[in-house]
Amino acid sequence: MRLLLVHPQADIICITSRQKDGEPISNTHPHLRGFTELKFKNIDPGEVAKQCDVVFTAVPHGTAMDIVPRLLDHKVKVIDLSADYRLPVDVFEQVYNLAHKAPKNAVYGLPELHPEVADSTLVANPGCYPTGAILSAAPLASQGMIELSVFDSKSGISGAGAQPTVVSHYPNMSQNVQAYKLTTHRHGAELRSELGRLDSSIKISFTPHVVPSVRGILTTAHLFIKEDIDIDQITRIYQTFYKDKPFIRLLSGIPSLGAVRGSNFCDIGFEMDASNRRLVVVSAIDNLVKGASGQAIQNMNLIFGLNETTGLMTPAVFP
Amino acid sequence: MRLLLVHPQADIICITSRQKDGEPISNTHPHLRGFTELKFKNIDPGEVAKQCDVVFTAVPHGTAMDIVPRLLDHKVKVIDLSADYRLPVDVFEQVYNLAHKAPKNAVYGLPELHPEVADSTLVANPGCYPTGAILSAAPLASQGMIELSVFDSKSGISGAGAQPTVVSHYPNMSQNVQAYKLTTHRHGAELRSELGRLDSSIKISFTPHVVPSVRGILTTAHLFIKEDIDIDQITRIYQTFYKDKPFIRLLSGIPSLGAVRGSNFCDIGFEMDASNRRLVVVSAIDNLVKGASGQAIQNMNLIFGLNETTGLMTPAVFP
Amino acid sequence: MRLLLVHPQADIICITSRQKDGEPISNTHPHLRGFTELKFKNIDPGEVAKQCDVVFTAVPHGTAMDIVPRLLDHKVKVIDLSADYRLPVDVFEQVYNLAHKAPKNAVYGLPELHPEVADSTLVANPGCYPTGAILSAAPLASQGMIELSVFDSKSGISGAGAQPTVVSHYPNMSQNVQAYKLTTHRHGAELRSELGRLDSSIKISFTPHVVPSVRGILTTAHLFIKEDIDIDQITRIYQTFYKDKPFIRLLSGIPSLGAVRGSNFCDIGFEMDASNRRLVVVSAIDNLVKGASGQAIQNMNLIFGLNETTGLMTPAVFP
Amino acid sequence: MRLLLVHPQADIICITSRQKDGEPISNTHPHLRGFTELKFKNIDPGEVAKQCDVVFTAVPHGTAMDIVPRLLDHKVKVIDLSADYRLPVDVFEQVYNLAHKAPKNAVYGLPELHPEVADSTLVANPGCYPTGAILSAAPLASQGMIELSVFDSKSGISGAGAQPTVVSHYPNMSQNVQAYKLTTHRHGAELRSELGRLDSSIKISFTPHVVPSVRGILTTAHLFIKEDIDIDQITRIYQTFYKDKPFIRLLSGIPSLGAVRGSNFCDIGFEMDASNRRLVVVSAIDNLVKGASGQAIQNMNLIFGLNETTGLMTPAVFP
Repeated sequence: MRLLLVHPQADIICITSRQKDGEPISNTHPHLRGFTELKFKNIDPGEVAKQCDVVFTAVPHGTAMDIVPRLLDHKVKVIDLSADYRLPVDVFEQVYNLAHKAPKNAVYGLPELHPEVADSTLVANPGCYPTGAILSAAPLASQGMIELSVFDSKSGISGAGAQPTVVSHYPNMSQNVQAYKLTTHRHGAELRSELGRLDSSIKISFTPHVVPSVRGILTTAHLFIKEDIDIDQITRIYQTFYKDKPFIRLLSGIPSLGAVRGSNFCDIGFEMDASNRRLVVVSAIDNLVKGASGQAIQNMNLIFGLNETTGLMTPAVFP
Repeated sequence: MRLLLVHPQADIICITSRQKDGEPISNTHPHLRGFTELKFKNIDPGEVAKQCDVVFTAVPHGTAMDIVPRLLDHKVKVIDLSADYRLPVDVFEQVYNLAHKAPKNAVYGLPELHPEVADSTLVANPGCYPTGAILSAAPLASQGMIELSVFDSKSGISGAGAQPTVVSHYPNMSQNVQAYKLTTHRHGAELRSELGRLDSSIKISFTPHVVPSVRGILTTAHLFIKEDIDIDQITRIYQTFYKDKPFIRLLSGIPSLGAVRGSNFCDIGFEMDASNRRLVVVSAIDNLVKGASGQAIQNMNLIFGLNETTGLMTPAVFP
Repeated sequence: MRLLLVHPQADIICITSRQKDGEPISNTHPHLRGFTELKFKNIDPGEVAKQCDVVFTAVPHGTAMDIVPRLLDHKVKVIDLSADYRLPVDVFEQVYNLAHKAPKNAVYGLPELHPEVADSTLVANPGCYPTGAILSAAPLASQGMIELSVFDSKSGISGAGAQPTVVSHYPNMSQNVQAYKLTTHRHGAELRSELGRLDSSIKISFTPHVVPSVRGILTTAHLFIKEDIDIDQITRIYQTFYKDKPFIRLLSGIPSLGAVRGSNFCDIGFEMDASNRRLVVVSAIDNLVKGASGQAIQNMNLIFGLNETTGLMTPAVFP
Repeated sequence: MRLLLVHPQADIICITSRQKDGEPISNTHPHLRGFTELKFKNIDPGEVAKQCDVVFTAVPHGTAMDIVPRLLDHKVKVIDLSADYRLPVDVFEQVYNLAHKAPKNAVYGLPELHPEVADSTLVANPGCYPTGAILSAAPLASQGMIELSVFDSKSGISGAGAQPTVVSHYPNMSQNVQAYKLTTHRHGAELRSELGRLDSSIKISFTPHVVPSVRGILTTAHLFIKEDIDIDQITRIYQTFYKDKPFIRLLSGIPSLGAVRGSNFCDIGFEMDASNRRLVVVSAIDNLVKGASGQAIQNMNLIFGLNETTGLMTPAVFP
C-alpha cells in the first residue's frame, strides 16, 4: 500500500480483511494516514475482481488456492504472494505437506529470470529468501559452473509477519541472532527449483537466520566452483547476465542492508577464495520490497506494459 | 540528495566537498548508486551560485556566515541549514559565543508559522529539536495559555552527524538512553525565540536525550496551562491553527516515530492531566526530514511557487 | 532466579507456575541451564510456605491479595512484587479500581528510604518507575525544597513483561520511542505517596515512555526549586541523604543505562538550570534488578540480617 | 576487570595505559565505579611483572612480541590476548605479514582442547571467532569425519574494539548486517591450525559478519560429512568429547546469543541435512567472555590450580 498509494499509474480500489472489516487502513498502518480514506472490507473475491484490473493476494499458503481460481475466472490478473503457485505441484505437495486443490499455470515472478511474466495471467511472487539467494547465484548457475553451494541467509524479523510471537518479542530478538529451520526451511525448495532449472546438478544447501533488524535479507552464498576461474571472468558473467536489469546493482565492494532499505534494489558483490575455489557472493535486498511487495509491483508494471521501474525507482532510506 | 534526486522540479547541479573532491557521491552514499553520476566538487561558492537557482548550505555554525553573503551577492536563493541565521544577532552571539561577521535578514524556515518564507531570499532552516518542540506548543502559545513548559526530547543518534564519536559508537549507544546538555542545549534559544514571539511570558525549559534509534525525534511537551480548559477546546485550537498545513497530522492517539520515519510529517497528539492542569503534547518527526532536509525542500517549494508538498508527499517507511 | 542461584546464602526451594507445571526451568530460561535442575511446580501457597523462610510473590495485582495472607499465616516472610501492598488501601482501591480483599501492614521496600524493612514481615517491593523516580528526588523532597516536579521516564521494553504484544513486537519497538499513559500511569500514585510522605506540598507529574532497549529506566526529573540554591549545596544534600547507601552512586556527570545494566545500582547525576530555577536530576537503574528482583533480594538480605549487598555486589555487564 | 574484580582468588594489582595514565578506571568504565579505586598507570612491563603472579597482555598484534618476553624473564605467567603466539611462527609471519621478533613456546588457550594449558607459562588466548568455530567442529574433526566445512559467523560489533569507526557508527550498524573480509579474515588461520591438528585433510572456509548486537558470536558451521551417520551417533560423539567440560552446554535445540550473554558458556546444537550429508552445527558464545577475557581467566584458573570455573560460574544476563 505504501508503494501503490504513490504509484502514478495505479489506484487502490479495495483492501480486504475479515478481522478488520470497516476499520480505516490508517488505524493499522499509521504511516498511511493522510494518503487514503479507504477502510478494510470483508468482501468476496468475485466482488473484488469485478472492480479491479489486478489483484494482489497476500494470504497464507493453502488459502491462496481457494481464492486465486475464482479471481482468474473473472479475467483479472493475479499476483499471488503465497507459496501456492511457486513450485511444481508435486514438489509443492511434498514440501508443504498439503494436497493442491487448484493447480494453475503460473509464472515464477522473478522478472530478472522470467521476462515471460509480462505475458502472464497468474504470477507466483517469489519468497523473500529465494529472491536474494537465486539472484546471487543465477549467473554462475546458468553457466553450469557451481559444484556445491551453501546459502547462509540473515533476515530482519519483519519477514516473520505482523503477528507478535515469542521470537519477535523485543527482549528476545534484541542483541540476538537466531538460526532456525537449519536444514528444513521450505524456501529451500524454491532455490532448488529455480537454480535447478538453470543447472540440475548443483548441490544446494540453505540455512536461514533472523538478526536484530526489521527489514532486509543479506544472503552469503558460498559457491564452490568446478574449475579455476579468475574474478574478472566472473564479473563479466554477472554483468552480462544482469545487463539492463534496473534493480540489480553490481558492486565492487560488499553490499549492506542500509543501501537497499525501503527500496526495490538487489545489491550484489563477490570475492574469490582461490585456495578453496570458493566464490563468496553477498546479496542484499529489502525483504518487504524486492523480497515481496516491490517485486509484486514490478511484476504488475510488466504485465500492464508499463516501464518496469514505474513507482519503484526511489532510493533507500539510509541511514 | 535522496529527496532531491526524485523531486520532479529540481535538478542537483553540484555537490561540494573539500575532503571528498572528485569522489562519486555513491561511494559515501551507497543508497544513491544508480541515481546520480555526480561527484563531489571542491568549488567556490561563487561558482556554485552561477549555476543554480537555489543553494542549500549545510556547514557548521560559524562557517555559513562566510559563505551565505557571497551566495546572496549572486542573487541566488539560499536555504541555510546552520544556526547562523536562526536567531536575532545578539542572541546568536551570546548563545554561540561567537561574533557574527555578516548579519542578514532571514526568515525562520518553519513554514507552518512563517508563510512569509515564500517571499524570502534567505531562509534559516530550523534546528531539528526546535521543529518538533515549537510545533507541539505553538497553537497554545499563540493563545497566551501556557504558564510553564518543559520540553523533554528523545532523538535518534543521526542528529549527531555522520562523524563517528564515542557517543555514536554502537556498543555505547545500543540499549542506552543518554541525556546530555541537560540545561544548556543551544536549540533552547530557538524555542525561546519562536515561542517567545507568540507569547513572551512563557517559561521554557528544554532537555534533550539520544535513544537507540537512527532517525526521529519524539518531543514530550509538558505544558502547564494558566486556566482550566477542556480537551475539546484544545483540540479545536490545534485544528484551527494547523488548518491547511499538509505536513501536520493531528492524531487522536499518541504519535510514534515509525509513522513518520523517512517522511516530512509532524504527527501531534495530546492528553490532559486535569489535576495538574498539565497538557502533555507529543510530537514526532524524522529529524533528518521535517527536522532538516525535508523542511528545507518544503521551503524551496514555497520560494519557487511550487506546491508546498512537491516531492515530499510520500509515506513513512514503516515498519 | 539468575541472582538467587548464585546468592551465597539462599537456596531456591521451589518455583511455581500453573501453566508450566513439570517443565524444567531452563526451557523457559535457557541462560539458567546448568545452574538448576528445578522444574516449575503447580503447588499450593501453603505447601510453598512450609518449605521456605521467605517467598517472593510475583503475580498480577489483584492476585497477590489472595496469596499473601495465606503465606503470612504460615509465619513465612513475604516479599511481594505486585502493587497490592504498595499504597494506602483507599488510594490503592481508587487507582486500581479494585476492592482490596485483604489489607495487611506492609513496608514499602525501598530500603534507602525505609530501613524498617529489616523488621518487616511483608515487604511491598516498589514499582520499577517509582524506584528510579523517588530516588532521584527524595533528598530534595525531604528538605521541602521542591515546588513542582515533572518526571519523564524512559524504560526498556522488558518492563512490559514476557508476554509478546503489539508494542513489544520487534518491528514496532525497533527505532521507535513510544510515550504511553501520558497522564494516567498507576505508578504515579507511588510517586505521590512516597514523595508526599516527605513533603505533602510537592506538585508531581509523571509520564512514561518505552525506548528500544531491553533493560533500564532513565528518569529525567525536572525539579522546580522554591528558592535559589547553588549546586554545591544540592550536592551536599544528596551526599548526606545517601551516605552509606551501597547501591546509590552519585556521579559528577550524567548517568546512562549501560553502567547499571544487570546490576542493582541506581546512578544519579544532576545539573542546575538557574534561569528557570530548575534542577534536572537523571537517575538510571536496571528495571529488572534495582527496579524489581534485585531490590527484592536487597530486602531479603535486610530481613534476614545479612549484609545488604550479599549476592548483589556485581558490576553491570557493559558494553 | 569486570570479572576479576569479583573473582574470589584474584586481585588486580595494576592496569596499564599510556594514554590514560593517571585516570581513574571508572572514568573509562563507568560500570566499575565503586569496585576499584585503581588508576591507569603508564609503567614498564618489568615493573608490572615484579608485582604480579600473572599478567594479561591485551595489546595489538605485533606489540605483544615486544612485551611478552620481558614479562617471561621475570618468571611471571603470561596470558596473551593478541595473535602473536597463537600460530606456528611461519604461519603467523605469512598471515600477519610481519616478522616475528620473539618466538616462544606457548599453549593455545582453548582449555577444552588443550588441558596442557595448566602447565604452561605462556598462554596464547584464542581469537573470538576461532573459539566458537573450533568448538563447534572439533568433536567431528577429531574423528576424521569432515570432508568440507563452511564456517559462517555472525558477531556483535564489540569485537571490533572500543575505538569508534565508520562501521561501528550507530547509524551505519543499526538495522544492518555487514559481511567483511569474505575470504581473508586472519582468524581463518587459527581455524585451520587447530582443526588441522585434529584432521589435516579438512577443507575449511570461513566468512565473518557483524550484526546489530553488542556482544556475542553465533557461528553456523556447515559440515559436509564423509559418510552417512545418524544424529544419535553424532550426539554421542559430542557428549563424549565434551564430557566434564563445564563451559560447554550441548542443547537439543538451537543456541542463541541471549543465553550466553555476559557468561563464559559455549552453547552448541546441531541438525542433520541428510540429503546433502550436511551437519549444521550452531555455536553461541559471548565474544568478550568465552571469546576473550572469560577464557583468559579460565586459563588463569587452570594455571594456578584453581577450579576451572572459579569466578566464572554465573548465568548470562538475559533478557
